Amino acid sequence: MIMRNTFAFQGRVNNAAKRLITEAVVEILDIENFASSNTFRIADLGCAVGPNTFFAVQNIIEAVQFKYQCQGLDSQLPEFQVLFNDHTSNDFNTLFSSLPLDRKYYAAGVPGSFYGRLFPNGSLHFVHSSYTNHWLSRVPKPVVDKSSPAWNKGRIHYTSAKDEVIKAYEAQYVEDMEYFLHARAQEVVRGGLVALIFSGRPNGIHHSQTTQNITFDLLGSCLMDMAKKGIVSEEKVDSFNMPMYYMSPQELEAAVDRNGYFSIERMEDLPPIQEIITSTIPKSQIIVSHLRAALDGLLKTHFGDAILDELFDSLSKKIEEGMPMLISGGSINFFALLRRKAMD
Amino acid sequence: MIMRNTFAFQGRVNNAAKRLITEAVVEILDIENFASSNTFRIADLGCAVGPNTFFAVQNIIEAVQFKYQCQGLDSQLPEFQVLFNDHTSNDFNTLFSSLPLDRKYYAAGVPGSFYGRLFPNGSLHFVHSSYTNHWLSRVPKPVVDKSSPAWNKGRIHYTSAKDEVIKAYEAQYVEDMEYFLHARAQEVVRGGLVALIFSGRPNGIHHSQTTQNITFDLLGSCLMDMAKKGIVSEEKVDSFNMPMYYMSPQELEAAVDRNGYFSIERMEDLPPIQEIITSTIPKSQIIVSHLRAALDGLLKTHFGDAILDELFDSLSKKIEEGMPMLISGGSINFFALLRRKAMD
Repeated sequence: MIMRNTFAFQGRVNNAAKRLITEAVVEILDIENFASSNTFRIADLGCAVGPNTFFAVQNIIEAVQFKYQCQGLDSQLPEFQVLFNDHTSNDFNTLFSSLPLDRKYYAAGVPGSFYGRLFPNGSLHFVHSSYTNHWLSRVPKPVVDKSSPAWNKGRIHYTSAKDEVIKAYEAQYVEDMEYFLHARAQEVVRGGLVALIFSGRPNGIHHSQTTQNITFDLLGSCLMDMAKKGIVSEEKVDSFNMPMYYMSPQELEAAVDRNGYFSIERMEDLPPIQEIITSTIPKSQIIVSHLRAALDGLLKTHFGDAILDELFDSLSKKIEEGMPMLISGGSINFFALLRRKAMD
Repeated sequence: MIMRNTFAFQGRVNNAAKRLITEAVVEILDIENFASSNTFRIADLGCAVGPNTFFAVQNIIEAVQFKYQCQGLDSQLPEFQVLFNDHTSNDFNTLFSSLPLDRKYYAAGVPGSFYGRLFPNGSLHFVHSSYTNHWLSRVPKPVVDKSSPAWNKGRIHYTSAKDEVIKAYEAQYVEDMEYFLHARAQEVVRGGLVALIFSGRPNGIHHSQTTQNITFDLLGSCLMDMAKKGIVSEEKVDSFNMPMYYMSPQELEAAVDRNGYFSIERMEDLPPIQEIITSTIPKSQIIVSHLRAALDGLLKTHFGDAILDELFDSLSKKIEEGMPMLISGGSINFFALLRRKAMD
């Protein structure tokens, strides 16, 4: 099972995202376009088990209701249906049992990867996805292929890796975003909105200089240290690669252009996370605890339970030592609002 | 958690039901009515964890596709979305992980009781529910109220109980079916179909003479025997009542009439279950094993784990002794096809 909520401190930027989504609905959503449908359908992609997903959809619904009221269309207010999506391995039982009791929408769970089709043609009015698109659909094949020039020996990510490795990751990202946008182009009604929140890389910053990737580099070096000590085999480390890619706003623009079915209505950086700046807990500790929560499952599946405590202990030290480098590293959270064009 | 698939031997009558549903689609479903919608939505209510639910919806989809082909409307063939519903406590994780990989429909899980609204207005084209409607939404309140004339002392069901108890169960059934039909009347498009399979009571047969109820009577007497021996408290037995009601075809007709939004297009008895007639395993053993599978959870919640083996051992003996009475008892499985009328 892949945990989606990484050390991007998901819930913490919700306020900025909340405001942007409300603005998107109020300023850009053309509700008269959907007047013939009496159901307004919202999908949350990569919903995990809540509660962030519930806050996000509640915010969207309130914004839509507000817009109907402002336009004097109270009597035409649609019913809402929210489709909560995540991988089949997500704990939908927990999600369902924690659904807000006072919700004013019909809820459904939709299992499957958002890199393929999940919903019928033209059935969604608003798609929301928060900190999910840095997860690739899979580890790029060439990086685990010994005979490939992109074989990623001694590393677990593309950070500071040779060009072939970076290119393999980029190619996987391009393919995944193509599938993602292609599927949404079919599912979203014309005029419908797609609000995406990304943990990404500032434009013009090299992969090796982004905070997330520097962290993965340190994690990789901890694993190699353990390999040298014989705690894990070197082969095990070579065959492990993180299925994550941190896109830049420019890369997203290029993907949307290539797809052709959406216009980008908004693209905005989200403010830095206040908690990590103002917290009295050491920054390294915060980073490691979030990282462990996000990566525990992935690491356990590949390396087993036994090494995790030692691994994160040594990572903690490396992060503390590397803090100046981490702080100087580039990292952004950004918001993009896409609108499905009025064409086939 | 309430287990829905009781000793009605669910999957076993599928062939007769399958034929009836295919006929319903071919003869009665007015697909031209839905031509404007490019999604055909099917709900399976009380789906449990499969695989019966997958067979049932597959059959419906094939019948709809067949009808489109026969009418030369291949090019207008809709996409299919199947909404699998059961209580929130149902194991949706297992359901999702066992979804057929080669399915030709979009799948979603919808948690909640079908005695309330589950889906948006006019969003369903075909509703299917199999052996679920004998489960009431709750135990009728008066039967567990010591101060009520309907207090059901010394019994666990309305079988052979005093009139007040029977009336309390009947009232709960009437209320539940009212909610059920009212919710479906809003959710199903005009012209849409509702196919229901019931484990029920033949017209004109008293409650105390139906096979299921005779069995519950025997189960109740086993519990009272244990109370007399001090293994469970008498109060514990008094406060336990089965939330099941076995309606007759006539009662269903009356409920549909009262609701007013549906016409009954078909009403048909399903053939008796061959397996129990031809099996070499003693009938009593088959009945008890199915009964235990169905009621284990319910009994465990109220009485705890410890008494179950002894309870079902003694039930097994009573069923064996009571077999002539059970065989002479009335019991039917019946099929009803409702069509949403073309009115508000």
